[in-house]
Amino acid sequence: MLNRDIIQNTGFTNTVEDGAVTGFQLVLRNPNYRGLSGSLVDGVDVTVDGHTWSHEDTTLVLQGTSYDLDTLRHSSGVRWSLMDAMVVRVPLPGGLAAGVHRVAVDVRLRAPYIPIEFQPGITHAERDLALVAPIASPTFSYGVSLYSYTGDMYTLLTLEDAMAEIADLGATGIEILGEGNIPGYPDPSPAWIDEWQRLLAKYSLTPTNYGSWIDSRMWLDRDLTAQEGAAQLAHDVRLAHELGFSTVRPKIGVITEDLVPHPIWDEAVERTLDLAHDLGIVICPEIHSPTPIRHPVVDSYIDFIERTGTTNFGLLIDTGIFMTKTAFLGWDGLPPESEDDVPVPLRPLSVPASDLVDIMKYVVFIQAKFYDVGTDLVDPHIPWRDVFRVLAETGYTGYLSSEYEGDRSPYRGIEQVRRQHAMFGQLERELFQH
Amino acid sequence: MLNRDIIQNTGFTNTVEDGAVTGFQLVLRNPNYRGLSGSLVDGVDVTVDGHTWSHEDTTLVLQGTSYDLDTLRHSSGVRWSLMDAMVVRVPLPGGLAAGVHRVAVDVRLRAPYIPIEFQPGITHAERDLALVAPIASPTFSYGVSLYSYTGDMYTLLTLEDAMAEIADLGATGIEILGEGNIPGYPDPSPAWIDEWQRLLAKYSLTPTNYGSWIDSRMWLDRDLTAQEGAAQLAHDVRLAHELGFSTVRPKIGVITEDLVPHPIWDEAVERTLDLAHDLGIVICPEIHSPTPIRHPVVDSYIDFIERTGTTNFGLLIDTGIFMTKTAFLGWDGLPPESEDDVPVPLRPLSVPASDLVDIMKYVVFIQAKFYDVGTDLVDPHIPWRDVFRVLAETGYTGYLSSEYEGDRSPYRGIEQVRRQHAMFGQLERELFQH
Repeated sequence: MLNRDIIQNTGFTNTVEDGAVTGFQLVLRNPNYRGLSGSLVDGVDVTVDGHTWSHEDTTLVLQGTSYDLDTLRHSSGVRWSLMDAMVVRVPLPGGLAAGVHRVAVDVRLRAPYIPIEFQPGITHAERDLALVAPIASPTFSYGVSLYSYTGDMYTLLTLEDAMAEIADLGATGIEILGEGNIPGYPDPSPAWIDEWQRLLAKYSLTPTNYGSWIDSRMWLDRDLTAQEGAAQLAHDVRLAHELGFSTVRPKIGVITEDLVPHPIWDEAVERTLDLAHDLGIVICPEIHSPTPIRHPVVDSYIDFIERTGTTNFGLLIDTGIFMTKTAFLGWDGLPPESEDDVPVPLRPLSVPASDLVDIMKYVVFIQAKFYDVGTDLVDPHIPWRDVFRVLAETGYTGYLSSEYEGDRSPYRGIEQVRRQHAMFGQLERELFQH
Repeated sequence: MLNRDIIQNTGFTNTVEDGAVTGFQLVLRNPNYRGLSGSLVDGVDVTVDGHTWSHEDTTLVLQGTSYDLDTLRHSSGVRWSLMDAMVVRVPLPGGLAAGVHRVAVDVRLRAPYIPIEFQPGITHAERDLALVAPIASPTFSYGVSLYSYTGDMYTLLTLEDAMAEIADLGATGIEILGEGNIPGYPDPSPAWIDEWQRLLAKYSLTPTNYGSWIDSRMWLDRDLTAQEGAAQLAHDVRLAHELGFSTVRPKIGVITEDLVPHPIWDEAVERTLDLAHDLGIVICPEIHSPTPIRHPVVDSYIDFIERTGTTNFGLLIDTGIFMTKTAFLGWDGLPPESEDDVPVPLRPLSVPASDLVDIMKYVVFIQAKFYDVGTDLVDPHIPWRDVFRVLAETGYTGYLSSEYEGDRSPYRGIEQVRRQHAMFGQLERELFQH
């Protein structure tokens, strides 16, 4: 699906010719109620951060072919449909800086059925939009969890739309929720699995982490047995493997207010370790607020690894544990009345990033949880500079997988992930590339 | 795609068992970030216009099977995915009245990974939503133009979503824009044509009117010739016929401020009459504000019919000509600063409905243009009662095809068309069925 905004998020990027950045491009959906011939498209004025390029100086790409205005005005058989976006290319040696820009367009369309005195009709559209620049030789790997797009998936975004957007960031990894993003879960059709593989290839994405659940309190009158928990986990490990994932995060039911996992957890995991080994999958529960790194639950996971000697069980770090400020912008976009009303995961747990050092040998995946990145690319809640430094010092080269969890207004997750990746690029350049 | 709101528009309807209305149903998308087992769905409280039905009294339909709460709590293998809506059935003998209702739900979901003290999690959703009741033996035929969903098509709605919504109204006719709703226009693929036929059958919809254009000012330096205009029209007539439509509305370029059509119009149409006759298509330009019924342009169309003796050319009436009040709520949802800033088609032309009487023998289609229907099912701009009376008196039994043209906020067109159809049902019952 196209973005409801005229200015699309996917495709806002610098353009490269012969190895040099020569400008940037914007992608627009047709603001008209009908499609129309290219000869009726009378150019697009573009304004970025107050600087304007005239419709006579921008280039339009329709149906894969690039046109200057004069050529387009004289064209036949070229069309801009309602289903297809148009690319607008703007010349600017060096391109735009990575980050959030105020972007505006005036789309000029001619309509022969409207008196010529009122032509062309001009549609103005304007928004903040993040441009993400590629990172040369990145220190870490970057990905996105579809969890970031909660609420937008299957309402505004198809799976393919989400994958196209992730690829557009220059990210290489895609994280999914098994019972969430797989139609027909727990048994998707072979046709869907083929489609998944086709899309991975099309967008050059690597499946990273697969979110699963061991729903211990599945029924009101009895809990899952360890055998049932193991069967659930084994099913997800097999499915994750079939889809190309390398880690499976089982979210295990809890029995206390401070999130002690249900006692079936270790038997359920242990019964699945041989299968995971055979399939090359690492099972990794998440260390998630309000559980800090120095906590009996984490100790019990590490004891399990040491006792079994397994290489198929590890830890997943959710960066929400590093929060130093309350995220007052909650899921519904409304500030809570008082600190007491803030949901627990949105309060600062303030785990020092240095606590990672002792456990990094067990860490196999990082969910880059966040709530808000400003137009200045500053995240007020999470000390990313500290986290990046510690991860680099410990030699981590695995994934940071965006997990946006803030206000679920339509399209906000998409734009926030764009900002987070622009911020990550800035941090890479600042910390590791001087 | 599902509606971004938790409460879906499509599917809000009274339910019938053994010929009697025994209740109503609401359709919900899953408000969670993941799909889940039916046993974790702890029921849904429903409130309509202040009256509440407890989650213990509503019935849930998942994967085509209906469950009471106790059965669902003990179920295995039942699932509510993120992609699939759930139907909530509420017992209410006689059902709800047609019209706009304030609808609220509290969706209760259990999550084993959240401490039991905070369970179930409850998601509240609330909105105004129109329920459309079927019309027994309707006087007119009812349809919808996809123009009504401008801005939402291909962003929020696929073609199939739109067709499902139209069928949900009890409407039987679908009107499209050729260069608008046909992928690959002017030459759609055979696969798409097959898909179109499949969807028509699935939703029991009849193709009504096909909107086309004769873009006389296609280029800046010269106009279309009559031959080129005829070729364009013939192409659309053939395509409309292939897709099952019975009328084609060519929107013809104009040469004056009061919309006198380009002089090629009659030759272009006349060259196409034999083809239209062979294919059973009636070509029908629209009578559209600011052109009233008593006007030289309409006279010239009627002269053309009389002169050629054709039965393949007629008139399409756009009900915007009957407006008696200015539509201050324009396309962008913002009121204009003054009456002078109101676009011409939004000003009242105040053509009396009785002006229809003399020309009805030429009228083949009616676009039910409108800008706003209130929660009380009153349209402040168009005197529908007069229009309905005159149409019935003249024996018209053809289509009224909704053409919503108001504020293009996301999803507003969908809800407005629902209200218009609820209003049409009310008028049918009031005027013709006592």
